[in-house]
Amino acid sequence: MTTPTTPLEFRHAVRAGQFRLPTAGHCGDHAQANLVILPRAHADDFLLFCQRNPRACPLLAVGEAGQWNVAALGADMDLRGDVPGYYVYRDGELAGQPHTLHELWRDDLVAFAIGCSFSFEQMLMEAGIPLRHVAQRRNVAMYRTNIANAAAGPFGGDMVVSMRPMKARDAIRAIQITSRFPAVHGAPVHLGDPGLIGIADLARPDYGDAVDIAPDELPVFWACGVTPQEAIRAARLPLVITHRPGYMLITDIRNATLAAF
Amino acid sequence: MTTPTTPLEFRHAVRAGQFRLPTAGHCGDHAQANLVILPRAHADDFLLFCQRNPRACPLLAVGEAGQWNVAALGADMDLRGDVPGYYVYRDGELAGQPHTLHELWRDDLVAFAIGCSFSFEQMLMEAGIPLRHVAQRRNVAMYRTNIANAAAGPFGGDMVVSMRPMKARDAIRAIQITSRFPAVHGAPVHLGDPGLIGIADLARPDYGDAVDIAPDELPVFWACGVTPQEAIRAARLPLVITHRPGYMLITDIRNATLAAF
Repeated sequence: MTTPTTPLEFRHAVRAGQFRLPTAGHCGDHAQANLVILPRAHADDFLLFCQRNPRACPLLAVGEAGQWNVAALGADMDLRGDVPGYYVYRDGELAGQPHTLHELWRDDLVAFAIGCSFSFEQMLMEAGIPLRHVAQRRNVAMYRTNIANAAAGPFGGDMVVSMRPMKARDAIRAIQITSRFPAVHGAPVHLGDPGLIGIADLARPDYGDAVDIAPDELPVFWACGVTPQEAIRAARLPLVITHRPGYMLITDIRNATLAAF
Repeated sequence: MTTPTTPLEFRHAVRAGQFRLPTAGHCGDHAQANLVILPRAHADDFLLFCQRNPRACPLLAVGEAGQWNVAALGADMDLRGDVPGYYVYRDGELAGQPHTLHELWRDDLVAFAIGCSFSFEQMLMEAGIPLRHVAQRRNVAMYRTNIANAAAGPFGGDMVVSMRPMKARDAIRAIQITSRFPAVHGAPVHLGDPGLIGIADLARPDYGDAVDIAPDELPVFWACGVTPQEAIRAARLPLVITHRPGYMLITDIRNATLAAF
């Protein structure tokens, strides 16, 4: 395909089956979203879970039951086909990786779009703060912690965090920058000693790839969008649909408009 | 004396010789200021030094030559007697500790009022962030660093920092809060490993008192108002007058009004 230049063109390319790859680096000025779709029967509990855990589950938009064209996320949106990869979970187990949801869609499905760290990473890079995993062309390192989520209905578990090593000076600046963006995880939840939040070994992340940490760097930890995915799987619901990790929904929302001040 | 309730009443008590003690804890909602007074011949260089080192030397106000009633700092201000203790330096050496400046005042003296960490400490305590030196009734610990100041004329040297130990969570919150107050030193300049900024031993501060640091705490470092005093002494000017450390000028400026956003 020709390289799409707008989120709408990108989504149209995805919808047409012309793009089925990870979305990192595409439409960089616009927010990419984690997608969670589940039946109305569990939607209220999940909404409450997100409300109670805003660092890990910052909601960009929630659709009505059955609604796949959530205008708050973008023009001519079709959540049934605008994501380049879906995961279908049944009873907590991965049961399918369809490219569209047309056969699965039901009138009681509710879509949740959750902010993604790609948005604040753009702001950090524009501020001249180097990101190790980007430089090393790896996925960001993610870890389970002992920070308990606030439970709601069947959803609970512990927070998952992403880690970026930084010099103290950059860490301070990164706290300032990401504090402006509560809709995409906001400020870090921890920095320094990983053992204090239950992480035994930074060299062995639970998700993503380990990255090198220099002696003059601190590990800085942000709440991660994998947290709700873990909570959802642990809840072992009959049906949950998510995006495939890394294969995000590209929205029309400009990252810069997410700044809280 | 009866306890003064407003900054103006406080200054009047000082001026009347009724208060000659450290000012910590007095008129807590209002900014206390570091005071530097020096002849016009060196004032332009010192102004430039402050402009180039805003973290250490955030200017609340600068008077005109000969002006002791700087209205930007408060009503009915008299910088010749409204500070409970003065230091007079001649050729870089402490040469006197007068209670008033009436005999020293000259038409070419220029007063600089520099923001003080008492202001942001109020904001931290109101946010529920414990301050160890306050709890331990000690002076804050201060250290010389290897962070070079940007020089201007005879003024140079290295940054002096104050250190407050905090849990990571509180350190992150403290960065958010103090970032809002660039007029009183703003965000920290460092946190974590003190060796990275040239501090050999936290137990041996260069000024103030050492405080205990718990295993789950990080040292957090802010640029300190002692920096300009060090630079001034090192410049060995014929005459410089400052407040006596801890004996600050209490201004009419409400701390809350210093928030940049």
